[in-house]
Amino acid sequence: MILTVTLNTALDLTYRVPALTPHASHRVTQVIERPGGKGLNVARVLAALGYETVATGFAGGATGATLRDLLAEHSTVRDELVGTAGPTRRTVAVVDTASGDTTQLNEPGPTVTAAEWAAFRTRFTALLDGARAVALCGSLPPGIHVGAYAELVRLARTAGVPVLLDTSGEPLRRGIAARPDLVKPNADELAQLTGAREPHRATRDARRRGARAVVSSLGPEGLLAATPEGVWRAAPPAAVRGNPTGAGDSAVAGLLSGLVDDSPWPDRLTRAVALSAATVLSPVAGEFDATAYEELLTRVKVTAESGTG
Amino acid sequence: MILTVTLNTALDLTYRVPALTPHASHRVTQVIERPGGKGLNVARVLAALGYETVATGFAGGATGATLRDLLAEHSTVRDELVGTAGPTRRTVAVVDTASGDTTQLNEPGPTVTAAEWAAFRTRFTALLDGARAVALCGSLPPGIHVGAYAELVRLARTAGVPVLLDTSGEPLRRGIAARPDLVKPNADELAQLTGAREPHRATRDARRRGARAVVSSLGPEGLLAATPEGVWRAAPPAAVRGNPTGAGDSAVAGLLSGLVDDSPWPDRLTRAVALSAATVLSPVAGEFDATAYEELLTRVKVTAESGTG
Repeated sequence: MILTVTLNTALDLTYRVPALTPHASHRVTQVIERPGGKGLNVARVLAALGYETVATGFAGGATGATLRDLLAEHSTVRDELVGTAGPTRRTVAVVDTASGDTTQLNEPGPTVTAAEWAAFRTRFTALLDGARAVALCGSLPPGIHVGAYAELVRLARTAGVPVLLDTSGEPLRRGIAARPDLVKPNADELAQLTGAREPHRATRDARRRGARAVVSSLGPEGLLAATPEGVWRAAPPAAVRGNPTGAGDSAVAGLLSGLVDDSPWPDRLTRAVALSAATVLSPVAGEFDATAYEELLTRVKVTAESGTG
Repeated sequence: MILTVTLNTALDLTYRVPALTPHASHRVTQVIERPGGKGLNVARVLAALGYETVATGFAGGATGATLRDLLAEHSTVRDELVGTAGPTRRTVAVVDTASGDTTQLNEPGPTVTAAEWAAFRTRFTALLDGARAVALCGSLPPGIHVGAYAELVRLARTAGVPVLLDTSGEPLRRGIAARPDLVKPNADELAQLTGAREPHRATRDARRRGARAVVSSLGPEGLLAATPEGVWRAAPPAAVRGNPTGAGDSAVAGLLSGLVDDSPWPDRLTRAVALSAATVLSPVAGEFDATAYEELLTRVKVTAESGTG
């Protein structure tokens, strides 16, 4: 099975309003509730692709219970979330119906206690036994030390399980130094990590910091991968229009599926770009259009570049 | 006991953010969860004043369960809410920390089924036996017919229980025609009902539509009451500064407390204005400052006006 970790899960609410006006009162015309957090998004995509998938991390309180109910109802992901005394945070995405523009409000989430973190590490270590790959995704909740991902990367490496890290800021900086197999930063995360804006330079710099491979997201232009086997660019056939929510998480799912299938890098990148574009095209945020995915698989363009990452 | 009805209860969330900017992402710095809906606010104030208070209406789903937990935890209000299959709505008040300005997002609430409405009427009728007064408060949830408050007013009158109606729009128009003992509109609700903006004229017009007494809110300037015993204005000693959330509900609680104590109108209005001002002065939205209330009781100014309403 593939294991995904979401330490800062969220109950994601999407509110549609005609247009958000500060300091006014709004009737919400549509409410959508979804289990949120990057690792849960990755897990749902993998499960929809037919992979046996397990999700761990934290959930607590009434919001956590709702999140777990929704996860069970809408996916085949096995729920191995660890309970917290504090309630799972909510995120609210307020979408203006006319323009599609989104205003985001993110609750901070519960403070995880030392005992809860210890319980999680125990569960994580047990789940590594049987995992073919593990993805560590998203931000750290309050109470968890900034080197937490570095700790989890080391546990995965000790267990011999390939580990992908998708986070930002100091947790990424520390995590990368623990030598994960793969990191997947976007342009902002990469620039923050390396100080470099030029994608090739920044991607290679990120690799030198300890990751075996770096797959950088170039947004609508696709992915740039620096790996021990070579450097590739992968691009969708044309710019796709739609809602980019969850596109990065779908790319992570594509990379993991290729990893566990032991497919060559160009194929992994093709899957990642196709899934990402099929997610942008889906009318439901964070879901992917399965027909578009199959079709895009044949049309993603992968180009080898000079150098070895 | 005093019975309050909240057909459209809500789990009220207050989010503090530095400043709300449309189409940006915000970290919420503080989250407060409270049981919401006008009738529940009235009930909490009455319970805090020492009155035996029962709350009915609807609650459902995970949000409804949280609302009921919070009500039990923070008040002595007896919970006689009727379950719905659909989940209780949330309201989100986004408060800009610097200015205190609030942006409101209100979910529509679950559609109440015919069977749920029938179950509520049965519960309501049973609770009227033993009620000394009943308050019908707030908007109607989806699925409930616009004459619902008129129906409840008639049930209360048949049971001989004095009934206060605090709603707006067509439900107020229909409800007032069923001859409630008291309505408490604000200036906008009054203007919408009567077409008149001048408070004396609009208040008298509202009385002629069927209410035994009309107490109109003049915002920070206090209340104007048109009753069979006379017409009064009641004003706080000075304009109070603070958060007006819940001030109108506290005024309703003051009027009900005076009604069940059979106190004369000037005393009822004094209580209503003092509680309303003490609510504005409280640092916590919807709570009242008990010390300020006691002090304000001696300083509210009530003036008899000519005429009999």
